Amino acid sequence: MIKVAPSILSADFANLQRDVQMAENAGADALHIDVMDGQFVPNLSFGMSTVADLRPVTSLMLDCHLMIMDPERFVGQFAKAGADLIGVHVESTRHIYHALQLIKDAGVKAEVVVNPGTPLSMISELLPLVDQVLIMTVNPGFGGQHFLDQMVAKIAALNELKQQHGYRFEIEVDGGINDQTVKACYDAGATVAVAGSYVYDSADPAQRIQDLKVATN
Amino acid sequence: MIKVAPSILSADFANLQRDVQMAENAGADALHIDVMDGQFVPNLSFGMSTVADLRPVTSLMLDCHLMIMDPERFVGQFAKAGADLIGVHVESTRHIYHALQLIKDAGVKAEVVVNPGTPLSMISELLPLVDQVLIMTVNPGFGGQHFLDQMVAKIAALNELKQQHGYRFEIEVDGGINDQTVKACYDAGATVAVAGSYVYDSADPAQRIQDLKVATN
Amino acid sequence: MIKVAPSILSADFANLQRDVQMAENAGADALHIDVMDGQFVPNLSFGMSTVADLRPVTSLMLDCHLMIMDPERFVGQFAKAGADLIGVHVESTRHIYHALQLIKDAGVKAEVVVNPGTPLSMISELLPLVDQVLIMTVNPGFGGQHFLDQMVAKIAALNELKQQHGYRFEIEVDGGINDQTVKACYDAGATVAVAGSYVYDSADPAQRIQDLKVATN
Amino acid sequence: MIKVAPSILSADFANLQRDVQMAENAGADALHIDVMDGQFVPNLSFGMSTVADLRPVTSLMLDCHLMIMDPERFVGQFAKAGADLIGVHVESTRHIYHALQLIKDAGVKAEVVVNPGTPLSMISELLPLVDQVLIMTVNPGFGGQHFLDQMVAKIAALNELKQQHGYRFEIEVDGGINDQTVKACYDAGATVAVAGSYVYDSADPAQRIQDLKVATN
Amino acid sequence: MIKVAPSILSADFANLQRDVQMAENAGADALHIDVMDGQFVPNLSFGMSTVADLRPVTSLMLDCHLMIMDPERFVGQFAKAGADLIGVHVESTRHIYHALQLIKDAGVKAEVVVNPGTPLSMISELLPLVDQVLIMTVNPGFGGQHFLDQMVAKIAALNELKQQHGYRFEIEVDGGINDQTVKACYDAGATVAVAGSYVYDSADPAQRIQDLKVATN
Amino acid sequence: MIKVAPSILSADFANLQRDVQMAENAGADALHIDVMDGQFVPNLSFGMSTVADLRPVTSLMLDCHLMIMDPERFVGQFAKAGADLIGVHVESTRHIYHALQLIKDAGVKAEVVVNPGTPLSMISELLPLVDQVLIMTVNPGFGGQHFLDQMVAKIAALNELKQQHGYRFEIEVDGGINDQTVKACYDAGATVAVAGSYVYDSADPAQRIQDLKVATN
Repeated sequence: MIKVAPSILSADFANLQRDVQMAENAGADALHIDVMDGQFVPNLSFGMSTVADLRPVTSLMLDCHLMIMDPERFVGQFAKAGADLIGVHVESTRHIYHALQLIKDAGVKAEVVVNPGTPLSMISELLPLVDQVLIMTVNPGFGGQHFLDQMVAKIAALNELKQQHGYRFEIEVDGGINDQTVKACYDAGATVAVAGSYVYDSADPAQRIQDLKVATN
Repeated sequence: MIKVAPSILSADFANLQRDVQMAENAGADALHIDVMDGQFVPNLSFGMSTVADLRPVTSLMLDCHLMIMDPERFVGQFAKAGADLIGVHVESTRHIYHALQLIKDAGVKAEVVVNPGTPLSMISELLPLVDQVLIMTVNPGFGGQHFLDQMVAKIAALNELKQQHGYRFEIEVDGGINDQTVKACYDAGATVAVAGSYVYDSADPAQRIQDLKVATN
Repeated sequence: MIKVAPSILSADFANLQRDVQMAENAGADALHIDVMDGQFVPNLSFGMSTVADLRPVTSLMLDCHLMIMDPERFVGQFAKAGADLIGVHVESTRHIYHALQLIKDAGVKAEVVVNPGTPLSMISELLPLVDQVLIMTVNPGFGGQHFLDQMVAKIAALNELKQQHGYRFEIEVDGGINDQTVKACYDAGATVAVAGSYVYDSADPAQRIQDLKVATN
Repeated sequence: MIKVAPSILSADFANLQRDVQMAENAGADALHIDVMDGQFVPNLSFGMSTVADLRPVTSLMLDCHLMIMDPERFVGQFAKAGADLIGVHVESTRHIYHALQLIKDAGVKAEVVVNPGTPLSMISELLPLVDQVLIMTVNPGFGGQHFLDQMVAKIAALNELKQQHGYRFEIEVDGGINDQTVKACYDAGATVAVAGSYVYDSADPAQRIQDLKVATN
Repeated sequence: MIKVAPSILSADFANLQRDVQMAENAGADALHIDVMDGQFVPNLSFGMSTVADLRPVTSLMLDCHLMIMDPERFVGQFAKAGADLIGVHVESTRHIYHALQLIKDAGVKAEVVVNPGTPLSMISELLPLVDQVLIMTVNPGFGGQHFLDQMVAKIAALNELKQQHGYRFEIEVDGGINDQTVKACYDAGATVAVAGSYVYDSADPAQRIQDLKVATN
Repeated sequence: MIKVAPSILSADFANLQRDVQMAENAGADALHIDVMDGQFVPNLSFGMSTVADLRPVTSLMLDCHLMIMDPERFVGQFAKAGADLIGVHVESTRHIYHALQLIKDAGVKAEVVVNPGTPLSMISELLPLVDQVLIMTVNPGFGGQHFLDQMVAKIAALNELKQQHGYRFEIEVDGGINDQTVKACYDAGATVAVAGSYVYDSADPAQRIQDLKVATN
């Protein structure tokens, strides 16, 4: 059964506590926090203060996905705000190894994220270091996108590397996840699924979280 | 009596509806929304989705202060999200006139913002165009700063230009405002005061809003 | 009578020689060449090779308006290509004095350009150095804009500085120029007018050039 | 026999219609349009308006090679101007998959371009998506360069990937192409050759186009 | 008599201790340390470690002129290395007031620097804050430049502002200083002169330092 | 026995000649010169003038490691200053092949450098071209880092590529090198070791150079 991390990007920004606790009560395994800076991606969302204000109101793992330029500037602040996991894009910094080390040095789980066009070969030196790899299944920061079927093969290839080398990272997927697409990801080796509008734009968000789990049971 | 615009930067990001409505009930005149991109200023706050989610829960004027690079990229989205006023820094774009025109073309009030080190001469061509001028009374985006007394003279000089030319813009001040500093600003010509931690970090935020008004009565 | 510089931005890029010679025959005083790099302005037009290929087919003065970042990188190449005058935006470089000196050292006339929002105070140190000042009467690089009436006062203020100090630069205007707007500019002190779509999108471009001259006679 | 795409970078910018029609009459298969922004490469050439003005005067395929930063900003405009194919450098954007999708969504053929130093592994996720791959056989944007013999092996390696996976993209080569070098490229698997100065700097451009075809017959 | 600050940019980088002590023995009043990052200016010189290694070998005031982008990132490190004064260009940061405050907060003298093309109006808000103003008398970072006579009027205008407001900052000049040009600067109000090649490229550097003083006696 | 290249980053910047000649007398094989621009890495060190001033005082090979953005702008100046080898980071430019060609065209040995997180696949097209590959064994430009054991496998993998293809480049390692770590590197195929603080922060630098050689004998 896949772990489900609802993305607060689709929640009500005026009532995050309510929406986060709903997710927690509905059996979510983590909370996905999409940080966007208007530079790495053409959208602005929120930052470390949101993490700090969510920390006391939920015991869910706070999984912070930084879609920002040169994230090494800010990982310390996200750690201090209460992040449990911090993800950085391999495309966002020339010092990706350093960024991941800073995260781990702060006592937080480290994740590397790859855009759809980025090959797995780009992260080969990072796999021994990370706790999680996030395979983007849409292009980050652009609206109205559909799940990219081509990414299933990428997940499978990553899973093969994982098995082959005995790595223990989780494989997360993000973008266009619903009860159809989640199954293909899970079968290919994904262990965590981010779900945004599928959960929060639904009449029954709690049910949707369960649907994702059931689909991969 | 000065108008008071509490800054949600100091509110509880997990419960913005609650904190915003508290401000409205307490007699706030507007809501100040500090948008930070981690590039123009070294902090990340929130973006257009926050504006969109606050719009239905308050009738307060939404005064969006964009501390972001090249804001002309995003002003249309902020307008669409429900902003009543959009402020852009003269230091943030080579096309400040264009940015202000875009705001006005979207049917929203336009504000130009100046950092403490920026002289008023830099905005002389913009004064006929804007609905509000924001004089930063601290450096934006950096924590732990005190009200810069030197800015009182700048407010007075701006007010003099306003009277002299018959301009009708509001003069807003932001940074280190409390019941002491607000009086000096008001006396120099400020008509709107942003208050962040002074309001939201207080035990009685509603009282603090009143205190600012009383101080300038 | 104002000098008229048709902008080839509105000509047929497939037949520039023909359109340029038409302008020359119609009594144009110069050719305005709008160089855009997609960075300083969000549009891409052409570069030094276009200047080099136009040089042998016209005896018109080639007036190159660089809407590009850090123009000091390229002014030497534009000079070598045959430019008679090179204009650089004060907003486009931290080394504007150096850029202007490079132009003059190359034996070419030097122009400083100001965006609508930029005050004249920003170019006070440059006025003794330049052969021409270009006052943008629209925002450069954005389509569908109208002449900004507010700029007439700016032209007049520049002309006053010119008279007062005995400077001998030409005052050029660019954006939204037609037989109405050109008169206001001329009366305020402009000596050269750029005309783009007004000339080239007309059925009788040659007539339009004359109309501008007649309007300022 | 290889397809030949003359590059208008070497044509007469004052008479593009004439030079383009010469190429069409001489049997060219496409027109290669080198768009340079002075940032991705240290040269400025032309933009979307040139494409728009060439569209009505030729039935040749317009193959637009964008040597610009963050090309996703402009691909829509190039499509609208009449491009038949748009190429984007994998080195020019963090969102290469998105850029290619935008091109395809606009109904235009999509091409990915690789600089000489960029390995094929960098485009492995893009090969299923593209209609053409452009292997640069010189460094783009720098003058006076010679064909890099080392690139022949890269073409062959790409062709092997193509055969192996059953991909159907064309393989284009650009830089230092003449009747000697074209043969090596063709034998290695190239299907389209860009020719610039070899064609247009010749006394008999039409003959040169034929020479390239004959050399690969 | 003007104070003289030899610039180590013209000293022997392999033997700075020797050249610095020579300057100290010859009566220099300060040491000018030109920090260049290859971005703000197209030259690279040295950084904070050079300051740290010079600190123990001289009692001269270490006057660090930062020709770098976003100097607020590094002023703390220069202070810690032993700088007595740190100068930042108004053209190098959107947060010039903040940068100057950081310098003062570190217990170091603060200087604002203006390029030749930058008007004094740009620093009007900074004059109450600074200990020194540096008027560039050449364009920084470009070789082979001559003293710009036009800058003498700028020095005089700054001196007038200083007298008028009772400011107490020093006025420093940098670029093309020799025993001729220094006199004009001194007469206009300059109190400190930087001398580079005039001192260190001479057969008798010590004599040159004295010559500058004598010329302004 | 490994070649040893002391890094002057750890020498006394006030007395480089002395420290460099000490290294030469102690049997160093080259001098490693760490050029940092405060942009590619968050530290500033020195530039081409330091190379020029060291050239006459040592016969050691000057091995210049450019940790700067867009190094192609400066490689010509480093060559002219007397560099024997110039290294450029694959992460620092979109035109890495061009940068390496410029170095070789200047008659200087060319090196490509890879950060810890960069896979060897990124430099596959460069290996036929270079005289040396530098494997960073710490993250460049950040203080207080330890040798990354994981890099030993990378050195071995590079050495395997070298043997397999008959390449003749040297393999250099840089970061956290001491008499323990040097042995692992050497055994994996490294042929040159950079040593900074291990040499210069020691009471007996000359002994330390010998220790590194002995450890790999």
